[in-house]
Amino acid sequence: MTGISRRGLFAGAGGGLVLGAGTGYGLAQALDTDDDGPSDIVDLSHSVKFYAGAHQVGIATPPQRYCVFMTFGVVDGTTPQELQILFARWSSAIAQMMAGKPVGQVEPQRPGAVPGDTGEAEGLAPASLTVTLGLGPGMFDDRFGFAAQRPRRLRDLPAMPSDNLRPGLTGGDLALQACADDPQVAYHAVRDLARLGRGVVDTGWTVMGFGRASAGAGQSTPRNLQGFKDGTRNIKEPAELDEHVWIDRDDVDWMRGGTYWVTRKIQMNIETWDADDLADQQRIFGRTKLEGAPLTGAKEFDTPDFEAERDGAPVIDPTSHIALAAHENNEGTRILRRGFNYTDGINEVGQLDAGLLFIAFCKDPQQFVRLQTRLGRSDLLNEYISHIGSAVFAVPPGVRRGEYLAQALFA
Amino acid sequence: MTGISRRGLFAGAGGGLVLGAGTGYGLAQALDTDDDGPSDIVDLSHSVKFYAGAHQVGIATPPQRYCVFMTFGVVDGTTPQELQILFARWSSAIAQMMAGKPVGQVEPQRPGAVPGDTGEAEGLAPASLTVTLGLGPGMFDDRFGFAAQRPRRLRDLPAMPSDNLRPGLTGGDLALQACADDPQVAYHAVRDLARLGRGVVDTGWTVMGFGRASAGAGQSTPRNLQGFKDGTRNIKEPAELDEHVWIDRDDVDWMRGGTYWVTRKIQMNIETWDADDLADQQRIFGRTKLEGAPLTGAKEFDTPDFEAERDGAPVIDPTSHIALAAHENNEGTRILRRGFNYTDGINEVGQLDAGLLFIAFCKDPQQFVRLQTRLGRSDLLNEYISHIGSAVFAVPPGVRRGEYLAQALFA
Repeated sequence: MTGISRRGLFAGAGGGLVLGAGTGYGLAQALDTDDDGPSDIVDLSHSVKFYAGAHQVGIATPPQRYCVFMTFGVVDGTTPQELQILFARWSSAIAQMMAGKPVGQVEPQRPGAVPGDTGEAEGLAPASLTVTLGLGPGMFDDRFGFAAQRPRRLRDLPAMPSDNLRPGLTGGDLALQACADDPQVAYHAVRDLARLGRGVVDTGWTVMGFGRASAGAGQSTPRNLQGFKDGTRNIKEPAELDEHVWIDRDDVDWMRGGTYWVTRKIQMNIETWDADDLADQQRIFGRTKLEGAPLTGAKEFDTPDFEAERDGAPVIDPTSHIALAAHENNEGTRILRRGFNYTDGINEVGQLDAGLLFIAFCKDPQQFVRLQTRLGRSDLLNEYISHIGSAVFAVPPGVRRGEYLAQALFA
Repeated sequence: MTGISRRGLFAGAGGGLVLGAGTGYGLAQALDTDDDGPSDIVDLSHSVKFYAGAHQVGIATPPQRYCVFMTFGVVDGTTPQELQILFARWSSAIAQMMAGKPVGQVEPQRPGAVPGDTGEAEGLAPASLTVTLGLGPGMFDDRFGFAAQRPRRLRDLPAMPSDNLRPGLTGGDLALQACADDPQVAYHAVRDLARLGRGVVDTGWTVMGFGRASAGAGQSTPRNLQGFKDGTRNIKEPAELDEHVWIDRDDVDWMRGGTYWVTRKIQMNIETWDADDLADQQRIFGRTKLEGAPLTGAKEFDTPDFEAERDGAPVIDPTSHIALAAHENNEGTRILRRGFNYTDGINEVGQLDAGLLFIAFCKDPQQFVRLQTRLGRSDLLNEYISHIGSAVFAVPPGVRRGEYLAQALFA
């Protein structure tokens, strides 16, 4: 999201700053600077267009501050027509909410009428809300007649080293990702979409991300709950998105402009981590903690030198997180990450239960599988994390006005 | 919190707005208006002073947007001296964090050193963080020699009608409430305080509030997850605080300037609620949904007329939430509320699991007991809510520089 820092705001030349009135031009945009510190001003008035054309929102959209992820299972006996109506209703409701409007009347006038919108976002700004829809592998089984349209690379993720998946936290026929700069706006969106879906879909599992942990284009790099910057080398440029994320011609036709989506719920043993010394933490990541510089560099965006040695040993440990994940060491494999911190409170042994809601988009889930297989096998970080939730979805392309999400499935 | 709305910002006279540079004067303060809509601009640069004198912070402080509440049990065998050191360390750490600083070195220079601060708030603004400490009834049993200093009105809450308390969600020797306009800042505070306490205190139970649901002085009224405004008639004026909240001379001396604190975790059956019709929802609350006006008035802040009748029946149902809770109907009893919305995801029957983290301050917990006994017995809202968590604490007075919280206990 756009934003400014205190430093940027008050360091302007000329001693003053003039904003035109009534321009409809957001304050934060007006004051945007290239200061690279985190922003102290959050402008909730900004809205994102749902009818954006080629791609769904919430993928290349610079990550908002909060996220609610929820999966759904289609109720037995549901017909393709009922799904079609659901997707049309969801699309229309998403467009409304992204514009800061309720999905129906909060105060319906007809006697005995139930409110069309649950109301808790009434009076709140759009807060850059985006909602993204994904379809799981199960949608292309024999239930709905979609088998011939199955996206070519959509299948359940294989078991991977270090997986510690919990039965209640895997898979899903459908998924929604609502991201916003106000968590009440994101929660309201998922709640009202779940409500619209009752009778056709049941809720599956959910994670609420309370703090952005990956950087997008134009954003300073936020920190995960291990205290390290996350997303320094994330995909940020349109050309990189075309190369690594958006599906072009090499999949089924109706998915052109779409992508694949992997969600992992990654528990962090933060109390154990907090007892580890700084040098070991930095060795595990391959970066310094405060600056986030690779251990071979001085600044965050310095390119890591995986060949550099000191006293005959590599400066960046070959089993450090950044060494194993780097595209240089994975035949160019890259994924678009969208991470959020989460907490589940306190676990059964009295320790803080928290972690990372990891979301990745890529034009082939094998990009993720390749990276995670290597990481799961050798990553020094594995001592402190556990992948407890997992799902994969196909993300249909974006829509233009008059269309609805996944419309091509019903053609 | 300070803040402005889009409407306020761009409706200024003269078509422009000039901000001086380098004044250290927060943007939101500079632009503050009396527009009563919710603010679209959040200024995270603001900080609150910990060494505030008579009263602890986080009570009369206008409620921030997020809250992390956590209880602790004192480890068996802990000495009063160890508690004294903990309170002194906590006080110093809270003061640091409220000023936007880490509690120790994120990158300690000594070889083998463990970071003094967990790091995830590094680079984040103070976000109006406050941390409030409470002491439960158990602190004044025979363990620490504090029996003679027991606050006069501190005892476990009695069982009340409609209680549905879960064993893991009650009581606590100590409690911390961290409130901030950035949840990562609030979470970081509680996490690092829990870490400082390891060996002396164990974690108990916790609730993370993701959206403010009660209004304080100068704030527009936010909404709870039933879509209604919450806190319209909250205590907001200093004279009311003196009358209903701050302990003066009628308690043990060392508690002068302190208060009592009740936390309730109130689960809302939001999916059932969402199926109820508007008229019934409004009858249950006694207010309209959008405006939040009493059913006898037109505007939110109109005084409810509990005597008014229409067609021989009271306009505001005598068992509505506002009728039962109103000070006019409770011999003037009032409490200071600080509510936050929470979600626990999805429950065992697939419904959205959410509710209200209810926090109240009063100079005698009986103020809460009186109101909740009446509400628990008759409130029309009881069909849709369930009190599942509960605790009561004495809140020691505030501190001046050089002092630490609850210092008088060790005199």
